[in-house]
Amino acid sequence: MGEQTLGTIGEFELINKVVAGLTQHDAVLVGPGDDTAIIDLHKAPVLITVDVLVEGRHFRRDWSTAIEIGQKAAAASLADIAAMGATATALVVGFVAPPDLPAVWASGCTAGMAQEAATVGASIVGGDVSAGEQIVLSVTAIAPAPKTPVLRSGAHVGDQVAIAGRLGWSAAGLAVLSKGFRSPRALVNAHRTPQPPYLAGPAACAAGATAMIDVSDGLIADARHIAQASNVLIAIDPRRLRIDAEVAQAATAYNLDPLLWVLTGGEDHALLATFPAQALIPADFTVIGTVEKPGDDGPGVSVGGIFDRSRGGHQHFGS
Amino acid sequence: MGEQTLGTIGEFELINKVVAGLTQHDAVLVGPGDDTAIIDLHKAPVLITVDVLVEGRHFRRDWSTAIEIGQKAAAASLADIAAMGATATALVVGFVAPPDLPAVWASGCTAGMAQEAATVGASIVGGDVSAGEQIVLSVTAIAPAPKTPVLRSGAHVGDQVAIAGRLGWSAAGLAVLSKGFRSPRALVNAHRTPQPPYLAGPAACAAGATAMIDVSDGLIADARHIAQASNVLIAIDPRRLRIDAEVAQAATAYNLDPLLWVLTGGEDHALLATFPAQALIPADFTVIGTVEKPGDDGPGVSVGGIFDRSRGGHQHFGS
Repeated sequence: MGEQTLGTIGEFELINKVVAGLTQHDAVLVGPGDDTAIIDLHKAPVLITVDVLVEGRHFRRDWSTAIEIGQKAAAASLADIAAMGATATALVVGFVAPPDLPAVWASGCTAGMAQEAATVGASIVGGDVSAGEQIVLSVTAIAPAPKTPVLRSGAHVGDQVAIAGRLGWSAAGLAVLSKGFRSPRALVNAHRTPQPPYLAGPAACAAGATAMIDVSDGLIADARHIAQASNVLIAIDPRRLRIDAEVAQAATAYNLDPLLWVLTGGEDHALLATFPAQALIPADFTVIGTVEKPGDDGPGVSVGGIFDRSRGGHQHFGS
Repeated sequence: MGEQTLGTIGEFELINKVVAGLTQHDAVLVGPGDDTAIIDLHKAPVLITVDVLVEGRHFRRDWSTAIEIGQKAAAASLADIAAMGATATALVVGFVAPPDLPAVWASGCTAGMAQEAATVGASIVGGDVSAGEQIVLSVTAIAPAPKTPVLRSGAHVGDQVAIAGRLGWSAAGLAVLSKGFRSPRALVNAHRTPQPPYLAGPAACAAGATAMIDVSDGLIADARHIAQASNVLIAIDPRRLRIDAEVAQAATAYNLDPLLWVLTGGEDHALLATFPAQALIPADFTVIGTVEKPGDDGPGVSVGGIFDRSRGGHQHFGS
């Protein structure tokens, strides 16, 4: 008897296998198995976000395990919720895969998602599966909105700009993997399974953050999103950006400026926030700049006083 | 200058194009453009469901327009919400497509989704896009839960079984298209753009429906889901199933029993519900059977007194 695949076990057995491994939390009034799930949000409005990961674009099966890919897929959506100052309650998952995919890969991937969700107390409450040519993971996360959700549009001139979490690690790990290496492991693992600072999101909200964003496209690109939504200049002082030794060493080995990875590398899911000048900034955050009035160049990002004119950000359809 | 594709306009311009065409309703406190959307559910718990549609499996670009495919994708999720007795408020969309896809196709498809959502007063409030080998549409719908959501598990012995909406039309339309024909148009259109009886869902809930399901896999297959969740026998009287003239004529032309399409055809998104014996059944519904105590065969479905032993239901990974 060969290895079980999605084609041999079929849709319903796959769903049964996955659902059997899930734990549901108190907020889940109705979990998987009905036309919809029902989640108690304690009378708050709902935050909702979706992220899609595509095999060969966002992950490779020869670079990461199924569990790691599941963790990474969930992290993208969970980090979006954190960036509003909230904590995710539930995920629903769209899962597309070729029929010859080993069934253990599918259950490993959803187990990875559930594991990542559990780090913030969230559950997988539903999903849909279909056959397709390549693996596509679509993860929707919901959360009860906090009293004052932190949008991108609230940064004010005079605010402090601060970052929580890692920068440049995932980009360095991707560079290592792209050259065919599997070490340094810390960098490779950072690319495989990002470590978003989930708790820093609600902490920033409680501390009065005026704007916040999940750094998924790169520090400059995502800072620009705050700048444009808030009509301000985000002035980053590069001397205040921490360049971790692991990232610096890899950059040296590849004859690159590590600042490139720190400023433009995405997928670490750091949180970039702005705080009023007098705010007590939570311990997870490091101040890296200030919010200024836009100059002749309009709203945008400056690094070391120089306005950034790069197109910036990962272009998913770009050549 | 050639036709614009997703590759030439890029991710951000695609999102701008799509978002510019969207209308947001009052319940949308924050729409597209931030890390998450924020939706007012009027203090109710949230219903959440996701459906994925894959090109070549659920739709073909040579059979349907972009708008029709968008309508169909949204209908699948909106019908799941209706089957709980609720009305959807918001959709988020994961959109995967090859870079050479014409940009007008992508904006047409999302316009179709928005149009279908608008029929129940819902908006598209967010999304994510990525390049991939084939088109994948992942649509998540949310709604405020009604006071007594209608689950699959509440059917009682003695209840009446009733159906709202069409049966067999989409299957007949698929058969027509599969043979290379484009008419009868009414059947072909039923396959391209299902017409779920959205209002019948909340009406059934208000009338005291004990169980309900969206018929997406076929009447028998979905009745079996209610039967198993409720531990009952769903006894369908085939003489009470309406066989529409269009469906009957196509079946005759193909030398088939039209009852096959009515009993096993999916994708029309009819609503199957059970009601207490004394309930006043809403006008949209037709009684087609009764809920009985399971016999030796256990919970399941009988048609004309004969227990159905078919595996039933569309198997997305099946051969």
